[in-house]
Amino acid sequence: MKTRPAPAIAAVMLAVLLALAAGPGRAADPLPSWSAGPARQRIVAFVKTVTDQASKDYVAPADRIAVFDNDGTLWSEQSAYFQLAFAIDRVKALAPSRPEWKTTQPFKAALEGDMQALAASGEKGLLELVMATHAGSTSDEFAQAVRDWAKTARHSRLNRPYTELTFRPMRELLDYLRANGFRTYIVSGGGVEFLRVLSQELYGIPPEQVIGSSIRTRYEVRDGTPLIVRLPEIDFVDDKAGKPVGIHKFIGRRPIAAFGNSDGDFEMLEYVTYGPGARLGVLVHHDDAAREYAYDRKSPIGKLDGGLDEAQRRNWLVVSMKDDWRAIYAPAR
Amino acid sequence: MKTRPAPAIAAVMLAVLLALAAGPGRAADPLPSWSAGPARQRIVAFVKTVTDQASKDYVAPADRIAVFDNDGTLWSEQSAYFQLAFAIDRVKALAPSRPEWKTTQPFKAALEGDMQALAASGEKGLLELVMATHAGSTSDEFAQAVRDWAKTARHSRLNRPYTELTFRPMRELLDYLRANGFRTYIVSGGGVEFLRVLSQELYGIPPEQVIGSSIRTRYEVRDGTPLIVRLPEIDFVDDKAGKPVGIHKFIGRRPIAAFGNSDGDFEMLEYVTYGPGARLGVLVHHDDAAREYAYDRKSPIGKLDGGLDEAQRRNWLVVSMKDDWRAIYAPAR
Repeated sequence: MKTRPAPAIAAVMLAVLLALAAGPGRAADPLPSWSAGPARQRIVAFVKTVTDQASKDYVAPADRIAVFDNDGTLWSEQSAYFQLAFAIDRVKALAPSRPEWKTTQPFKAALEGDMQALAASGEKGLLELVMATHAGSTSDEFAQAVRDWAKTARHSRLNRPYTELTFRPMRELLDYLRANGFRTYIVSGGGVEFLRVLSQELYGIPPEQVIGSSIRTRYEVRDGTPLIVRLPEIDFVDDKAGKPVGIHKFIGRRPIAAFGNSDGDFEMLEYVTYGPGARLGVLVHHDDAAREYAYDRKSPIGKLDGGLDEAQRRNWLVVSMKDDWRAIYAPAR
Repeated sequence: MKTRPAPAIAAVMLAVLLALAAGPGRAADPLPSWSAGPARQRIVAFVKTVTDQASKDYVAPADRIAVFDNDGTLWSEQSAYFQLAFAIDRVKALAPSRPEWKTTQPFKAALEGDMQALAASGEKGLLELVMATHAGSTSDEFAQAVRDWAKTARHSRLNRPYTELTFRPMRELLDYLRANGFRTYIVSGGGVEFLRVLSQELYGIPPEQVIGSSIRTRYEVRDGTPLIVRLPEIDFVDDKAGKPVGIHKFIGRRPIAAFGNSDGDFEMLEYVTYGPGARLGVLVHHDDAAREYAYDRKSPIGKLDGGLDEAQRRNWLVVSMKDDWRAIYAPAR
């Protein structure tokens, strides 16, 4: 009589065979661009704590929400926000049908690439620029314009397409958090419809997980076609104290981890790191003039002042790009 | 020498043993409360089409988004929106600290349960009622008030807690869609912060997948505690042409299926069912006076008129509660 294994034995044998097939190796390092220092240790310890069911600070997957600022946190933001580069390029593209722009500020400055005159036009001028270049179209047309721009536009000093200026350590971190059951959201002061076009490809973040500043839209049926039309009117400014408001409006519950790089992220970190259980607040400190840029307390873009003052008292982690990151970008293609 | 099974044989044996253990039965019917009629067939055929990789209308999981109106679509809405019952109960709870309400409309009407006088106060009166009962508190306090109310409040004619007045066939449908890789969103004219407190328990829908009307909020730190404060100011009205705007604002892509029951859902169905590939637009028709309510073209609440006129031409499915639903609610507890 032949020996036939009982079901339980078959299952055990299969498990052993599969384990042997997988080999004796360790899992691949999920954060290869992070130096083996205290920053990395703190992030990994946080993730282990909230995912360990035996921990008193265990967090159910539904509440594992992490929020990320975009400009300066997930990609570079110097010497000007990339969306401003898009707006300027769009002024140039639209200029033939707007001859008056040649002699009117801030459009004249944008057409001439005169960044000083553009800055001198102030918040009002920049708002005018954004409205003229971001409104008036349908949402589909606008998305197409962003897509077309992203295909060819390059950062002059860093000499790469903008789409290759995302921070490699942060992309690893996004993947690592998602592999541990987190949902990752962007909470940006930038325009939500600009960013949503790019977020999936750049960060693996789908449009519904992007929160940002917005202009109003209107639903309209034109010749039988339903359209979302973009209006020249501010809807929501997702910056500073607007960030917790945006999080509450779009997510409706408090995330447990927040990542930023400037004082525009202060209230977001404050809101997220307050509250019970393990919390993680992280500020990326741009201190790497050689590989990227070095700026903080006095920078007109991405100013980080109050955050540096308060980080220690509030137990926020300050990540040094210079020391904690082994690479800044992915190798150029 | 004993016979030892080779790895492949062990795996096959295990699979066979597991299959035998599971028994010969078919999968359980996912829609037991739906009659075996054309409505059910149409819904099932749509789901099969968009999930079948061999189909020309296959839709990747990321784009399998279905949107649902709430009042009248997922739960009852007669003789008044349940949120209005909450507002009236809240007027009563807050009345001791607002003695002037005893003599001021619409509060006097609310306190006396005089629905006719309340209706006579018009949209302005109702707005006043909502602002007085929904604003002023922090978001946490408001959520607690909704939670407390939901524990005890009952529908007088239907003689059940409001929380037991969700439509059983629709809850089966939500589960069925999610089991097929859909994400299910609520897109309601009702208040988003009211609904988000209840949506997980009622429908298995997390707060971040609830879109609704909202009042403005402000971030504030009080005695070191970060708070979201609710302001007496309308932020967004998620009804009629506001529904596609809300979908675009919160989701940022076009869903492929939409479920409603009134003309307030017309633009949402129009927006969703326009566009390429398989689309599903569904209107729940309240034609069951015995088990729920019967109303459509002339009802002040949940009026369905244009939708009935247009359903055939636009290929929207009209579901008869009377004929297509074998049960309306879950058995009373």
